[in-house]
Amino acid sequence: MAEPAVSVRKPYRLVSRDFHPDNSVVRVGNTVFGSNRVVVMAGPCAVESRDQVMSAGECMARIGVPILRGGAYKPRTSPYSFQGLGVEGLKMLAEARQRFGVHIVTEAVDHDSLEQVAQWADMVQIGARNMQNFELLKAVGQVGKPVLLKRGFAATIDEWLMAAEYVAAHGNPNIILCERGIRTYETKTRNTLDISAVPVVKQLSHLPVVVDPSHAAGQWQWVAPLARAAVAAGADGLIIEAHPNPAEALSDGPQSLTWTHLEDLMRDLGRISRAIGRDL
Amino acid sequence: MAEPAVSVRKPYRLVSRDFHPDNSVVRVGNTVFGSNRVVVMAGPCAVESRDQVMSAGECMARIGVPILRGGAYKPRTSPYSFQGLGVEGLKMLAEARQRFGVHIVTEAVDHDSLEQVAQWADMVQIGARNMQNFELLKAVGQVGKPVLLKRGFAATIDEWLMAAEYVAAHGNPNIILCERGIRTYETKTRNTLDISAVPVVKQLSHLPVVVDPSHAAGQWQWVAPLARAAVAAGADGLIIEAHPNPAEALSDGPQSLTWTHLEDLMRDLGRISRAIGRDL
Amino acid sequence: MAEPAVSVRKPYRLVSRDFHPDNSVVRVGNTVFGSNRVVVMAGPCAVESRDQVMSAGECMARIGVPILRGGAYKPRTSPYSFQGLGVEGLKMLAEARQRFGVHIVTEAVDHDSLEQVAQWADMVQIGARNMQNFELLKAVGQVGKPVLLKRGFAATIDEWLMAAEYVAAHGNPNIILCERGIRTYETKTRNTLDISAVPVVKQLSHLPVVVDPSHAAGQWQWVAPLARAAVAAGADGLIIEAHPNPAEALSDGPQSLTWTHLEDLMRDLGRISRAIGRDL
Amino acid sequence: MAEPAVSVRKPYRLVSRDFHPDNSVVRVGNTVFGSNRVVVMAGPCAVESRDQVMSAGECMARIGVPILRGGAYKPRTSPYSFQGLGVEGLKMLAEARQRFGVHIVTEAVDHDSLEQVAQWADMVQIGARNMQNFELLKAVGQVGKPVLLKRGFAATIDEWLMAAEYVAAHGNPNIILCERGIRTYETKTRNTLDISAVPVVKQLSHLPVVVDPSHAAGQWQWVAPLARAAVAAGADGLIIEAHPNPAEALSDGPQSLTWTHLEDLMRDLGRISRAIGRDL
Repeated sequence: MAEPAVSVRKPYRLVSRDFHPDNSVVRVGNTVFGSNRVVVMAGPCAVESRDQVMSAGECMARIGVPILRGGAYKPRTSPYSFQGLGVEGLKMLAEARQRFGVHIVTEAVDHDSLEQVAQWADMVQIGARNMQNFELLKAVGQVGKPVLLKRGFAATIDEWLMAAEYVAAHGNPNIILCERGIRTYETKTRNTLDISAVPVVKQLSHLPVVVDPSHAAGQWQWVAPLARAAVAAGADGLIIEAHPNPAEALSDGPQSLTWTHLEDLMRDLGRISRAIGRDL
Repeated sequence: MAEPAVSVRKPYRLVSRDFHPDNSVVRVGNTVFGSNRVVVMAGPCAVESRDQVMSAGECMARIGVPILRGGAYKPRTSPYSFQGLGVEGLKMLAEARQRFGVHIVTEAVDHDSLEQVAQWADMVQIGARNMQNFELLKAVGQVGKPVLLKRGFAATIDEWLMAAEYVAAHGNPNIILCERGIRTYETKTRNTLDISAVPVVKQLSHLPVVVDPSHAAGQWQWVAPLARAAVAAGADGLIIEAHPNPAEALSDGPQSLTWTHLEDLMRDLGRISRAIGRDL
Repeated sequence: MAEPAVSVRKPYRLVSRDFHPDNSVVRVGNTVFGSNRVVVMAGPCAVESRDQVMSAGECMARIGVPILRGGAYKPRTSPYSFQGLGVEGLKMLAEARQRFGVHIVTEAVDHDSLEQVAQWADMVQIGARNMQNFELLKAVGQVGKPVLLKRGFAATIDEWLMAAEYVAAHGNPNIILCERGIRTYETKTRNTLDISAVPVVKQLSHLPVVVDPSHAAGQWQWVAPLARAAVAAGADGLIIEAHPNPAEALSDGPQSLTWTHLEDLMRDLGRISRAIGRDL
Repeated sequence: MAEPAVSVRKPYRLVSRDFHPDNSVVRVGNTVFGSNRVVVMAGPCAVESRDQVMSAGECMARIGVPILRGGAYKPRTSPYSFQGLGVEGLKMLAEARQRFGVHIVTEAVDHDSLEQVAQWADMVQIGARNMQNFELLKAVGQVGKPVLLKRGFAATIDEWLMAAEYVAAHGNPNIILCERGIRTYETKTRNTLDISAVPVVKQLSHLPVVVDPSHAAGQWQWVAPLARAAVAAGADGLIIEAHPNPAEALSDGPQSLTWTHLEDLMRDLGRISRAIGRDL
């Protein structure tokens, strides 16, 4: 079916720091990942309505979050859950971009949605469940937009870097890696944030690494401490779920910050960034 | 991104035993899963050549294995590994079917390969890495062939049954579940065979459950004991990797049985089946 | 605090099959582990009363279970849970031995209880939580009774064999290894029975290996299929929780078999044993 | 053997924040845990010689580390590994205390060593492997010294808090909890630091929480980022392995910092502490 576990010797080339000793810089519009500046992406789990997206875009512009996130194609565990607004959702995100000057990152789940996302968004997200959807990775390799590649929730660091290698080997070097928590026996949190992955991946690879504290925590109260920890550990950025009204969110409400919480967090992240000699 | 962990209350309907109290019977050609008979599927990990496939087909017919397995589309961790023979491989499998009277199960990895597999094979396999590739699951739901749905190597039993629910909700009730080992901290074996999943799933669902001892073991020496254990635990069948010359296999050689080992194992499995009141 | 993970090279000597190529035979009274005969141990989780223990002893003698289990010293997660009857419990077990001709296995949790258990019982059990209580292992090495060494629920196979090496290196070669399920992300079962550990350990070590299906399952309905699987996989024995009235058990009621269930299971295990050329 | 997994309802009382809403303060000599000040403990894995301990004590005093760690009783996976200097080691630690004004934390592994440690050290450490050695926990509850209770490497947060409850229920409320990494499928690091445990435990319990980044990382290069992350996440302190000559350490050399690395790290930790409104 598949192959034995990858060997101890590094099986990746293009994404390895041996191949490219300096940090890679990945541009999303005029925002740069992999420099001295820590980049925050935030927004709702799913695009739910035009009002919601405009509220989000306005908030991000106001508090200095350069990239708006929001899902139009939603991989849901249940076939009976809300599956996303599709192209209509992408158009709402694009409108927010134009009105508020934010960039857009949103997920693609197959060839068709990838084509749409590549057209409307500034960065394509590949979700945790698709990290080893190799046909999708090959297709993303041929797209002219940067890629946010989330770690599968049971992927080893080597497998994650091999997924990035698929994208790079098929032509797209603009990859940002995203740690979002792994599956362990502990059930208090939704996933266990593998904070160590930040320094480990920075050592093995030249690619920027960001952290998603929201999916790891599963509860909004723990998002801020995990976000602070990620910056202190050396992450190049964060992707955070926030919602104008978490109690009414169609998905991931319990782990979503309000605009106020997010604004407070931005202030704290600025202080930590400066404490380690970076900017936000 | 996605939704919180599924709740304690059973979130699946169509695949639940509450919905359909009797065991479901799934037919693959004239072979029946879910009856009193234990069904063995076997063959090479990957289709490598016409000679290899004919040798496999001849062996399976001779020793009483009704279904030949073999991958033409291979999801590989590395982009530099052998990716499969594609349609040419499917045609070789179809030739073996015609010559030796065996049925064919082989994996689909995206919409295009699914179309081909549905045309040439008797059963479509969805691999562990695609268990939550929901767009693929929806497409499989609209295919007129039975589905072998492998458990993701980090999927909970609930998530696995929800993946089956996707297929059923989109129109295809002919689903066979396949336990193939889960990812744990233990590294002696390639994965940890969750043998308990057999009785647990039989209690929760009416669908047939089979076991893949090869990917769990990772070493051929341990395949036979795990196969015996699966039958004793109540599995409705097995899918086993075997190769005419494991030392030269392009993938999964270390965990592949020879024809001789497989023949010996069939004899043991027959004895265990009869000890628990079933046939092989 | 402690040392890095044990290396790939086998770090154990006395318990290794390289050191002693033939299967070791361990005698508990006139019962032999490691021969062609599969040995069943059964009884309540905890010794609760004289009546309960006599009922258990009578049942075991009647249905052909040669060894009675029952805990007098109980390691409990909560300090507020029933902690066992101590020496009084041991005396009840000893009375059952005399009246019904069964042998006794029971757990020791520290030096003091070890001294008592070694005096009253036929075999000392070291529980999962004490598998790396090295001071206790050293003390068990100096006791003149055989040892049932349970695998820690998060111990690797190498660590488990190293724990056995502690006992052997301190003078006691009469060790029986017991797989009882490991901790994984799956929550349907109490632990994930690592059935593969049976053939893996039989290859690495000459010691007898038994399986505890009760703690892995956590629910009595799944105990029988797991017990059958263990025998089919080559286990040298089983240790099973059973209780005269599971609904009123002070601990582990949900996973305890009734006398009737146990008697039925013994019949099935006999059939499977004979199917693989062994006796029960 | 033991009981089912603890229920969703909080099973602990004395250590719960419901019982004691304010943060507890634990004093080790004149050092205070649980206040606004972040406390660092550091030193070698094992006490190896008088020279080594004096070098460590001198370094800690010079760079502002108030508590010296060092093991005299070593729980080792192999019976053939260095097992510690015992009481001689404790006396060396006590000499360093007197000469350099540092406090001492060191591990106890059974009743005998506990008696010695309680006599010579300022704080008793209970290691990860003994977190559910309930007899030892009961004994620690009766000792008049504060306790550093490490989380078992496969313990849930609930089980860890229940272990603390054992100590508290037997009379000792002076408990400091220590997260040190949990066992997962990822092998790049020795253990996976569960950084989320810091905010989760601070919410559930009033006890101080510290982090051991050394055992999680397994490699010294990753210790500093993890230590910074721990402070940013809200940990009340750190315990870090450092050695005058890591290449010659009898245990844990690869994860030990040099004096120079530790001094640099202290500077960074001071900056992060101040960025979140605390002191070091």
